[in-house]
Amino acid sequence: MMRQAGRYMSAYQKLAEKHPSFRERSETVDLIVEITLQPWRAFKPDGVIIFSDILTPLPAIGVPFEISDAKGPIIQSPVQFEEHLENLHPIDLEKLQFVGESLRILRREIGENAALLGFVGAPWTIATYVVEGGTTSTYKTIKRMCYTAPHVLRALLSHLTKAIADYIIFQVNSGAQCIQIFDSWGGQLPPHLWEDWSKPYIKQIVSAVRKQCPQVPIVLYINGNGGLLERMKGTGVDVIGLDWTVDMADGRRRLGNDIGVQGNVDPALLFSPLPVLTDEIHRVVKAAGRRGHILNLGHGVLVQTPEEAVAHFFEVARGLRYDTLFEDCKSEQLETVG
Amino acid sequence: MMRQAGRYMSAYQKLAEKHPSFRERSETVDLIVEITLQPWRAFKPDGVIIFSDILTPLPAIGVPFEISDAKGPIIQSPVQFEEHLENLHPIDLEKLQFVGESLRILRREIGENAALLGFVGAPWTIATYVVEGGTTSTYKTIKRMCYTAPHVLRALLSHLTKAIADYIIFQVNSGAQCIQIFDSWGGQLPPHLWEDWSKPYIKQIVSAVRKQCPQVPIVLYINGNGGLLERMKGTGVDVIGLDWTVDMADGRRRLGNDIGVQGNVDPALLFSPLPVLTDEIHRVVKAAGRRGHILNLGHGVLVQTPEEAVAHFFEVARGLRYDTLFEDCKSEQLETVG
Repeated sequence: MMRQAGRYMSAYQKLAEKHPSFRERSETVDLIVEITLQPWRAFKPDGVIIFSDILTPLPAIGVPFEISDAKGPIIQSPVQFEEHLENLHPIDLEKLQFVGESLRILRREIGENAALLGFVGAPWTIATYVVEGGTTSTYKTIKRMCYTAPHVLRALLSHLTKAIADYIIFQVNSGAQCIQIFDSWGGQLPPHLWEDWSKPYIKQIVSAVRKQCPQVPIVLYINGNGGLLERMKGTGVDVIGLDWTVDMADGRRRLGNDIGVQGNVDPALLFSPLPVLTDEIHRVVKAAGRRGHILNLGHGVLVQTPEEAVAHFFEVARGLRYDTLFEDCKSEQLETVG
Repeated sequence: MMRQAGRYMSAYQKLAEKHPSFRERSETVDLIVEITLQPWRAFKPDGVIIFSDILTPLPAIGVPFEISDAKGPIIQSPVQFEEHLENLHPIDLEKLQFVGESLRILRREIGENAALLGFVGAPWTIATYVVEGGTTSTYKTIKRMCYTAPHVLRALLSHLTKAIADYIIFQVNSGAQCIQIFDSWGGQLPPHLWEDWSKPYIKQIVSAVRKQCPQVPIVLYINGNGGLLERMKGTGVDVIGLDWTVDMADGRRRLGNDIGVQGNVDPALLFSPLPVLTDEIHRVVKAAGRRGHILNLGHGVLVQTPEEAVAHFFEVARGLRYDTLFEDCKSEQLETVG
C-alpha cells in the first residue's frame, strides 16, 4: 500500500508526537527505518515502501524547502526565471545518505520476505512545487510558463530528469527492488500538454534507469488518469497504477495485457464492513486478469482508516487463489510481472 | 462560461463587499439579476447562466444550511440514519420564488440575444453535502452508507431526484432555456458504483424533464470524468461537459457524433498570453468536430483571471468561421445541437 497519507497507525501517531517535524522523521535513518517497518510488522505485506517524500531530494539539488503545518511544503526561492536556474546543481547524493543507509538496513531487516520499494516524483510533478513555491490548486504559474518561459521550464525539467534518474539508481544500488514514479499532478495538464511537458522526461528517466538497472520494475502513478491511460503506456514503464476513478476492467481493456496494472481499490472502502472489502478485492483482481497485477489501493491510506480493515485487506490478499477466481486457471500459482 | 468560481470580475467583487453574505447574494432577486448580467454586459456571450448555487434549493426540501467563510457550506442536521429522512419534504417552490422571479426578469432583459441557462446539482452530488454535513475530500461517510444503510441512501437519493426534477421544470417554466446538471462529485465514485448510485437518478430526472419540457437541452458535467464518459452517455442527456483532463479528440471518439460536447478549455490558460488562448480555442473546436459543440471552459473561471482574457475568449469565439476551421465545410454557418 502507498501510505503517504498513512497517519492511520497508532504506532506512527505516537512516534510523530515525539518527533513532530516531518523533515526530521523522513530524514533520520532510525526513524525512517522504524516507520517503514511499522506496517510491515503489523500486516506482513509482500511489498515495503520506504517512508520518504517526493520532495526529499530537493535540498540535494539546490532547492531548500520547509514544511508548514498549515500550508504544507514551502519553497522560499521558487524557480520561475532564467536567473533562478543558477541555484540548481547536480544531485549531491552525499546529502541523501539517510535514504541510502535506510534502504540498506531495510533490505537486511526484510530479507527475502518482501520486496523493498523506493519512489520518486516525476519531473513535472516536482516542478509544480519548485515553480509555484508550494502546493497549488490551479497550477497557473507553471502552466503559464509553458508559454511565457518555455526554455526555463524545459531547463528545469531536464535538470530534474537527470537528478531523479540518478536518485533512482542510487536507491536501487542501496537496496530498492522496485521503483514507483509518482506523477501525481500530471493529470492536471490537458493530455496533449502532458505529452509535451511530462511524458518525455519520464521516458528519459525510464531509459536511463533501464541501462543501469535492467532488472528493476518501474511503476507509474498519476492521480485521476482516466484521460491519460494509453499515453502513460508510451513511457515504457512496467506497471501503471490506477486510482479508483477508472474501472479496472476498462483500464485493462484500454491498456492491453502486455503491461502490469496496480491499485484501483477505493481507499474509502476501508471504512465499510469487511465483507464489502473482500468482495471489492475479488472484483478488482478478476477485472485485472491473470497476468501482471499488483493488488493495491488506488491511492494512499486515508487518515482515520481502521487498522483492522488494513489487516483484513492483507489477509484477503494472502488468501487469494487464482484457481477459484479464474475459471480457466487450474493451478493456484500466481504469475508475476517483470 | 460556468463562473461559479467567478470572483474574477471587479464589478462582482465590489458588489460582494457591499453584500458579504453569499446566501444574500444568491437569494435576493435584485442581486441575482445584477450579478448574472455583469458578465453578459461585459462580454456578450450567447449563453447566460443564472447566479445561484447547487445547494440553493436545499432549505426548500427541509435541509437548512449555512455558509462559513472557512469551511464552506455547513449542514447542521446531516441525513445519515432512517429517522433523519423525516425532516425531508417535497420541494416547496414558493420558497424558491427568488429563482423564478430572477429567471423571468433575466429572460426579458436578455431577450433573443442569448440563451438563458439554469442549473442543478445531481442527486449524488447534493447527497454528498447532505450526508457528510458539508464539503468532504474523502466521501467516506456517504460511501460507507452505500453498504451500511443502502435503504436510507436510496430514499434520500429518490427524494432528491423528485425535488430536482421539479426544480428544473420550475426553472424552465420561469424562463430557463437549457439546463446543466452538475454531478460534480460523481467522479469520486468508482465507475461501477457511479452506475449504481448516481446514473439511475440522473436518468430519472432526464426522463421526467423530457416529458414536461421536451424542447430543453440538458447538459451533464462531472469533474474528472475520464473514467466515466461512455457511462455518462447512457443518462440520455443531450450534451456532455468535458473538463480539461480529457482530450477533446479522445472525448469525441469515445462518445461518438450523436451527442453534444461542451467545455474542455483549461481555465488556467486564461493566464497565458492571448495568442495561446486563440490557438487553444481553435484546437478544441477542431477536435470537437462540426456538430454539437458548445465552446466553454472545462471548469469555472479561476479567481484572479484577467478580465481581458475572458473578453478575448468571447471575441475569438464570435469570430470562429467553420469554413476556415474545417476543410470539408463550405458554409460558414454554425450548426446547433437540439
